[in-house]
Amino acid sequence: MRIAHVAPVATSVPPQKSGSVQTMTSLLTEGLVDRGHDVTLFAPGHSITRAKLHATFPLGYREDQTMWPWEMYELLNLAAAVERADEFDIIHYEAEYFPMSLAFTRLSRAPVSQTLHHAPDIEELTLWRRYPDAPFIAISREQARLLDGLNVAGVVPHGIDTERFVFNATPDDYLLFLGRFTPGKGPVQAIEVAKRTGMRLLLAAAEEQYYHDAVKPLVDDKQIVYVGEVDFDAKVKLFGGARALLYPVQAGEPFGLVLAEAMACGTPVAALDRGAVREVVDEGVTGIVFSDLDQMAAGLSRVCDLDRRRVRTRAVERFGVERMVNEYVAVYQQIVEAHRGRRTD
Amino acid sequence: MRIAHVAPVATSVPPQKSGSVQTMTSLLTEGLVDRGHDVTLFAPGHSITRAKLHATFPLGYREDQTMWPWEMYELLNLAAAVERADEFDIIHYEAEYFPMSLAFTRLSRAPVSQTLHHAPDIEELTLWRRYPDAPFIAISREQARLLDGLNVAGVVPHGIDTERFVFNATPDDYLLFLGRFTPGKGPVQAIEVAKRTGMRLLLAAAEEQYYHDAVKPLVDDKQIVYVGEVDFDAKVKLFGGARALLYPVQAGEPFGLVLAEAMACGTPVAALDRGAVREVVDEGVTGIVFSDLDQMAAGLSRVCDLDRRRVRTRAVERFGVERMVNEYVAVYQQIVEAHRGRRTD
Repeated sequence: MRIAHVAPVATSVPPQKSGSVQTMTSLLTEGLVDRGHDVTLFAPGHSITRAKLHATFPLGYREDQTMWPWEMYELLNLAAAVERADEFDIIHYEAEYFPMSLAFTRLSRAPVSQTLHHAPDIEELTLWRRYPDAPFIAISREQARLLDGLNVAGVVPHGIDTERFVFNATPDDYLLFLGRFTPGKGPVQAIEVAKRTGMRLLLAAAEEQYYHDAVKPLVDDKQIVYVGEVDFDAKVKLFGGARALLYPVQAGEPFGLVLAEAMACGTPVAALDRGAVREVVDEGVTGIVFSDLDQMAAGLSRVCDLDRRRVRTRAVERFGVERMVNEYVAVYQQIVEAHRGRRTD
Repeated sequence: MRIAHVAPVATSVPPQKSGSVQTMTSLLTEGLVDRGHDVTLFAPGHSITRAKLHATFPLGYREDQTMWPWEMYELLNLAAAVERADEFDIIHYEAEYFPMSLAFTRLSRAPVSQTLHHAPDIEELTLWRRYPDAPFIAISREQARLLDGLNVAGVVPHGIDTERFVFNATPDDYLLFLGRFTPGKGPVQAIEVAKRTGMRLLLAAAEEQYYHDAVKPLVDDKQIVYVGEVDFDAKVKLFGGARALLYPVQAGEPFGLVLAEAMACGTPVAALDRGAVREVVDEGVTGIVFSDLDQMAAGLSRVCDLDRRRVRTRAVERFGVERMVNEYVAVYQQIVEAHRGRRTD
């Protein structure tokens, strides 16, 4: 298949520092190349890929502050792919923010599909429903449910590079909270669970206002320890060393990448039942999903007792890049067929 | 000619309250219809026009707060015109903010031209230079100069409805400042000039922070009087009753609609030499352009002595709708020819 894969313009693919959308974009691009597809990646010029790179811009707008307004840069990167639509069977946009690709839906000879990386709000849905044919690829059934009234061509959960998330059979004796310090991620609730169970908790995330307001007062550097923001290697070590990942998420999220990453290191997860959590966690195998904090505190030892090798194996099966790439190819084929069926010219 | 005229999505065309872009869009649309052109206006559904109305949305985002993000609504209104490009000889976008139309330049069978209603900044120019063929129609030579490196197909100064700006041969005895209370518009400088000349000054504009910070302390309700924000009829009365309009503008502007409006009422203008001012004011006929405030204060009586009927006549010649519409038609023809010459399919 001739595939135009359109990345966000924020930074390189893969990202030099953080960037979950860029990481996923890179894994999918390289996986498609491995399967022999003819892939053109529309991404900033400092990206590294074995696909053909269409460098619409030399850098991303995270690096080059003159690239403003950033929405226009996203738009022109997309336009660059649509301008070459005759060369592709499908255009796939990784919409870091809102999928402006909809504006091109009826102008492109090739179908323009989009993966949305957040939970859409009501204003966005109202807008997108004007283009009921535009194919979305959801990242969870939960997100697909939220995309009600739109054309969800398929559900493809994210894949992660399971080779880089190294398995650790013999963890240390701590619990881990890893994520952003926001009320929605539940760091205060994680501390609550640690205190009730008497276990040590390491917190890893960048300092934000909510850290100073709500989290720092609870850090005692003995039982509750803040380890700062960590790079990739340190993250993998932290995952591998944890008895369990605490995920007392308060706001529903459309996926939960940190769950898959922890599991790939063999670390079971204790999660609250919100958003797509039940789709990511295999109950009793890779973790346990609890309905409230009391249950989580009471059931935490059962989570820690889960078989780490089995956690790893299941994570690789379910969240390996192989699976993601295969599923994307299948959805692409379906979208291309449907598009061919609709075209009359 | 088959013309798609794409208005901003903010509010109706013409606007029910204020909206200089919508007013100009309406005048141009109706003028084109009068000349027998086949015009389709892409504007919110509560617009009133004798052209064909393509109501992409029922309301504007000023009226309907759920229309968010507004940039996407602008984009989809434009896309609606480009989707019908086969039906038009030219698409003309009135870009209230940035011309996202550039993204469609190479996707549309009909040429996509744009009138820009503000002075572009360096970031915008950098972006737009990626599309050096995209035809801009400048509103002044000053704006054309700022659009350096872009394809400026022509310069067409704004027109106003000179019938509605009623001539007044016998003004009252006051000076007028009408515009927004911002440092760039120079309300404090207008007060300075009034004080030096001992003449009364009426200030008409909406209350903004700068009014409270810098203007209000200078208002004494005797010589310096704030009359609030005024509707259209009150504005015309204020213009007509003024001996002169003070326009001590500090920041360069690409046009200066208030100058043309005052002149149409027969009111001469005293302006500082910034931006496009010299293109709008006919020196010694419709007003006098000064290089600084001292000169303005010293020369104000000469401004007040200008022949008001001659001011009116010149304003109608130069800023009547007739002239604007004729010039737009000529530029459209030129853009259509150039586009035809470039197309090979």
